Amino acid sequence: MSRTVDLNADLGESYGVWRLGADEQLLPLLSSANVACGWHGGDPRIMDTTVAAARAAGVAVGAHPSFPDRGGFGRRAMDVSPADAEADLVYQVAALDGFCRRHGLRLQHVKAHGALYNAAAKSAPLAGAIAAAAASLDADLILVVPPGSALETAGREAGLVVAREGFCDRAYEPDGSLVDRRRPGAVHDEVEAAVEQALSLVTEGRVRCIDGSLRELAVDTLCCHGDNPHAVEFVRRIRAELERAGVEIREMGRTLGRS
Amino acid sequence: MSRTVDLNADLGESYGVWRLGADEQLLPLLSSANVACGWHGGDPRIMDTTVAAARAAGVAVGAHPSFPDRGGFGRRAMDVSPADAEADLVYQVAALDGFCRRHGLRLQHVKAHGALYNAAAKSAPLAGAIAAAAASLDADLILVVPPGSALETAGREAGLVVAREGFCDRAYEPDGSLVDRRRPGAVHDEVEAAVEQALSLVTEGRVRCIDGSLRELAVDTLCCHGDNPHAVEFVRRIRAELERAGVEIREMGRTLGRS
Amino acid sequence: MSRTVDLNADLGESYGVWRLGADEQLLPLLSSANVACGWHGGDPRIMDTTVAAARAAGVAVGAHPSFPDRGGFGRRAMDVSPADAEADLVYQVAALDGFCRRHGLRLQHVKAHGALYNAAAKSAPLAGAIAAAAASLDADLILVVPPGSALETAGREAGLVVAREGFCDRAYEPDGSLVDRRRPGAVHDEVEAAVEQALSLVTEGRVRCIDGSLRELAVDTLCCHGDNPHAVEFVRRIRAELERAGVEIREMGRTLGRS
Amino acid sequence: MSRTVDLNADLGESYGVWRLGADEQLLPLLSSANVACGWHGGDPRIMDTTVAAARAAGVAVGAHPSFPDRGGFGRRAMDVSPADAEADLVYQVAALDGFCRRHGLRLQHVKAHGALYNAAAKSAPLAGAIAAAAASLDADLILVVPPGSALETAGREAGLVVAREGFCDRAYEPDGSLVDRRRPGAVHDEVEAAVEQALSLVTEGRVRCIDGSLRELAVDTLCCHGDNPHAVEFVRRIRAELERAGVEIREMGRTLGRS
Repeated sequence: MSRTVDLNADLGESYGVWRLGADEQLLPLLSSANVACGWHGGDPRIMDTTVAAARAAGVAVGAHPSFPDRGGFGRRAMDVSPADAEADLVYQVAALDGFCRRHGLRLQHVKAHGALYNAAAKSAPLAGAIAAAAASLDADLILVVPPGSALETAGREAGLVVAREGFCDRAYEPDGSLVDRRRPGAVHDEVEAAVEQALSLVTEGRVRCIDGSLRELAVDTLCCHGDNPHAVEFVRRIRAELERAGVEIREMGRTLGRS
Repeated sequence: MSRTVDLNADLGESYGVWRLGADEQLLPLLSSANVACGWHGGDPRIMDTTVAAARAAGVAVGAHPSFPDRGGFGRRAMDVSPADAEADLVYQVAALDGFCRRHGLRLQHVKAHGALYNAAAKSAPLAGAIAAAAASLDADLILVVPPGSALETAGREAGLVVAREGFCDRAYEPDGSLVDRRRPGAVHDEVEAAVEQALSLVTEGRVRCIDGSLRELAVDTLCCHGDNPHAVEFVRRIRAELERAGVEIREMGRTLGRS
Repeated sequence: MSRTVDLNADLGESYGVWRLGADEQLLPLLSSANVACGWHGGDPRIMDTTVAAARAAGVAVGAHPSFPDRGGFGRRAMDVSPADAEADLVYQVAALDGFCRRHGLRLQHVKAHGALYNAAAKSAPLAGAIAAAAASLDADLILVVPPGSALETAGREAGLVVAREGFCDRAYEPDGSLVDRRRPGAVHDEVEAAVEQALSLVTEGRVRCIDGSLRELAVDTLCCHGDNPHAVEFVRRIRAELERAGVEIREMGRTLGRS
Repeated sequence: MSRTVDLNADLGESYGVWRLGADEQLLPLLSSANVACGWHGGDPRIMDTTVAAARAAGVAVGAHPSFPDRGGFGRRAMDVSPADAEADLVYQVAALDGFCRRHGLRLQHVKAHGALYNAAAKSAPLAGAIAAAAASLDADLILVVPPGSALETAGREAGLVVAREGFCDRAYEPDGSLVDRRRPGAVHDEVEAAVEQALSLVTEGRVRCIDGSLRELAVDTLCCHGDNPHAVEFVRRIRAELERAGVEIREMGRTLGRS
C-alpha cells in the first residue's frame, strides 16, 4: 500500500464581499488546493490572493471549474452539452492558470466541482469533454477522478495522469460510490470515523462500506474539506494520524511522478 | 513614414444565442483580431470558434478584455479599483490565451475594450493595472494604446511593446483625442473620408483634425470596425486603398519586431 | 369546437446590445405576448419597451420566466429545487408585472420558458412550485400549460385558470406529447402543414399525429413563434386561415372568461 | 423637534451559499428594513425569507435597488444612463414588491443602495430616474433621500413622500454631506459618539459636524447598519437611548402620514 498520499481541499470559494471557508487555517494542512475559477465561487481578486497564499504555503494548485451556476454554487446538475462543457473548462482552467503563471507556479491539476464532478463520473461524453479540455491546454495536467468512474476512463484515454480521489468523511456504498447525502450515515460526523477511513484508504487500500463490507479502493489523494462545521479540526487530526502512521503527505504531482 | 500597418477589429462579440458583427466577412480583411473574453461579449464556445477561425485565416489574435458589464456591453464607465482591474485583466487575458494554446496560436496582444480603454487612456493608475496584468502573464504581449495616452506611458514603463492605434472613421480633436461621439462630425459616415484618414495616418503620419488643422500622429495599427452599418465595405475599401498606395498589411507582432 | 383561439408568441428576447426575434412584425398578428423576464433573454429596458409596444398593439402580456441560464437561453435542464424555482418565479413574474403596472396593463398570464416548461410538464413538484408562485402573486393569473401535463394538474389544483397550449409547427406523438426535435419530421417546415394543424386543433379539437393517427387535443392558445426562419410569414398565414375559417382571434384572458 | 423616528437597516444581503450581516439580530431593533433586490446582494430565496422575517417581526419593508454590480456589491460608481437606471429600478422594486404581495405586506419605501444612492444624491437626471421609477409603480411609495440632495428634490417633484435619512455613525461635513470614508474621523467607531449623534439628530434636529460646527439637519429615518463589527450592539444602544429620551421608534410610513 502507498506510504504517501496527497491531501486536497477546495479553496478560494469566497466571492466579492462574501466570505466562505477557512482557507487560511486549512492551507498549512494541505498538499494540494483546488482553487475556484469564478463560476461557482471565487473572483479574480480572490483567485489571485488564493494562488499567492498557496504558493507561500508550498501547496500545489489545481483548477476547480464548475457548471455556470454561481447562484446554486455549482451544485445543481445542468444539461450542458459536451461541446459547451469543453469550452467552459478551457476558459476556467486557463483563467486560473493565468494567476499561477503570474505567481511563478505551474498548474498541477484539474478537479471538476460539485454537480459537474458528479455528472462526469457517470457520463462518458461529459467526462471526455473535461479530459479533452485539460489535455488541450497542457498534456501534463493531472485529472482528479473518482476511482472507477467514467472520468477516470476518459482521463486515461486522453493520455492524462489521473489522481484517484477518496473521501474521509463520506460513507461508501459496496460498489465504491458515495452514499447519497440524504441517507442516514452518509456523512461521518465523528472525527474518529473520518480518521479511521483515511487510514484504511491510504495504508490498506480499502474502505469499510456502509453495509459493513470491505472494498478495495486505491486512492492517490484525499479530499479534506468536510461538510461539517469542524472541517479544520478534522483535517488537522487526519493529517496528524496519517503522519503518525508513517504516511508522507505530498502533493499529487510528486506522488504521481509528474516532473 | 511607415509602409506597413496592422488592421485590427473587434471579433467574437456574439453571446449565447445572440449574434453580433460580421466576423466571417471581416476576418479575411484583417491582420489582427481583438477577441472578446466573455465579459462584455463572447462566451467560451464563441471564443473557441473565433480563435479557430482567426487561425485558419492567418489573422493574429489579441485579447479584448472589458469592465464586468455584459448588460452594458462594456461601454459604461465603472469605478473599478486598479487592483481589481489588474486581476480582472489577468483573468480575461489568460482565459483567451487558453483558447490560443488549444489552437496552437500565440496570443499577440491585449486591447482594452470600450469604457475600459477610454478610462485607461486618461487614468495612470488604471493604465498601470492593465499593463501590469499583461506583463505578469507574458512580457512579450503587445499592448494596444491610444497614442500619447496614459496607457501608452504605462505600457512602456512596464516594459511592454506598445502598438499605437489610429481610427479611420472617427474625427480627431486638435490635441489628438477622439471627438466625442455625441458631437456632429464625430464619425465619418462616408467611406471616402475614412479612406482618406487611413491613408493620411499610415503614409503621412498625420491626421486632419475636426478644426481643419493637421496633427502628427504615428500609428502602428488601425482600428477597422466601424460604428456604421457598412463596416465590411469600409474595411474592404480601406484595405484596398492602402494596398494600392503600396502599404503592406501585416499583423502588429511582425511590424513591431516581436518574434 | 371552439370558434375562438388565442395566438401567443415569445417576445422581448433581445438582450443588451443583442437583437433577437421579429417582435415588431409579430406583434400585430398576436393576441398574447410572452415577455422574457431577464433571465434567459430580455433586460429591464427591453421589458419596458416590449410591454409598451404590446399595449400599443392591443396585445395582452404574460410573463415568460426561465431557469437562471442566460448563457444557455434557458434551454438547458437544471436541477433547481421546487423551493428555489418558486422564489425564482415570483421574482421574474413580479418584475415583469412592474412594467405592466407602469404602462397601465394587467398581467394576463404566466408561461414558463424552454427547459423549465418542459421539466414542469413532467415534474409534479416543479409544476406545483410554478403554480404556487403565480397564485401567490395574483390568483387571477392564467397559467399556460401543455394539455394533460403535470403543469395543467398543478395549475388547476392551485385554483388557477389554465390555458392549454397547442403548437402549429411541431409534430405530435400519439400520446399527445411533442415529437423530439432531433427526430425527422419533428418540425413542420412547410407552412401548409402548420396551417392545417392549426385549423385541426382549433376547429376540430384534434391533431394528426406523426404516426398518422388522430388524437383529441383541446387547446385554448396556439404558440406561434416557429423554429424556422419564416416565423412571421407562418404566423401571418396561420392567422389569415384561421380567420377565413371563422375563428376569432382573442387573447386568452377573454376567451377563458377572466374578467 | 420630532419625538418619533424610523430606524432602518439594510437586510437580505446574503447571496446563494454566502452569508452576510446579522439580519436575525438586527430585525427586532428596527422599524424599517431595506431589502436587497438581487443585484448587489440577495437572491429570490433570500428575498422571500427576509420579507417573511420582516413581516413576522412587524418591521416595514422597502426595496434596496442597486447598480448592476454584484461583484462589487453595488459600491462602484457606474455610468448608467437615466433611462437604463429607471428601468433597472422598476425591475428591482417590482421584484421585491412581489415578495411583499406574497406575504401580505405593502411595500413601504425605496432606498437606493451604495454607489447608486451616492450618485443620485448629486445627479439630478439620475435622481429623476429613480423617483420616476418609484412613482410609476406606486405613487404612495416613500423615497429615502439624503437631506438637501438632488434625490430629495427629485422625489418631491415626482410627487412622492420623501424620508430624509441621517446616519449615526458617520461624521458630517459643515455642508451636511458625509465625510469621505477615507478621511480620518469619517466613521464613529465609539458607540457613545454614535448615540450622541443619533440623539442630536432626532431630538434637536441638528448635528455636530467634523469641524465642530453645529448644523441644522432634520431627519425622518436613521440608518442603523454600521460599518463596524459591532453593528448589532450599536443599534441596540442607539435604540435604547432614543427610547430613554422619549423618542418613539416607528416605521417611516406611519411617521410620514402614509396610510
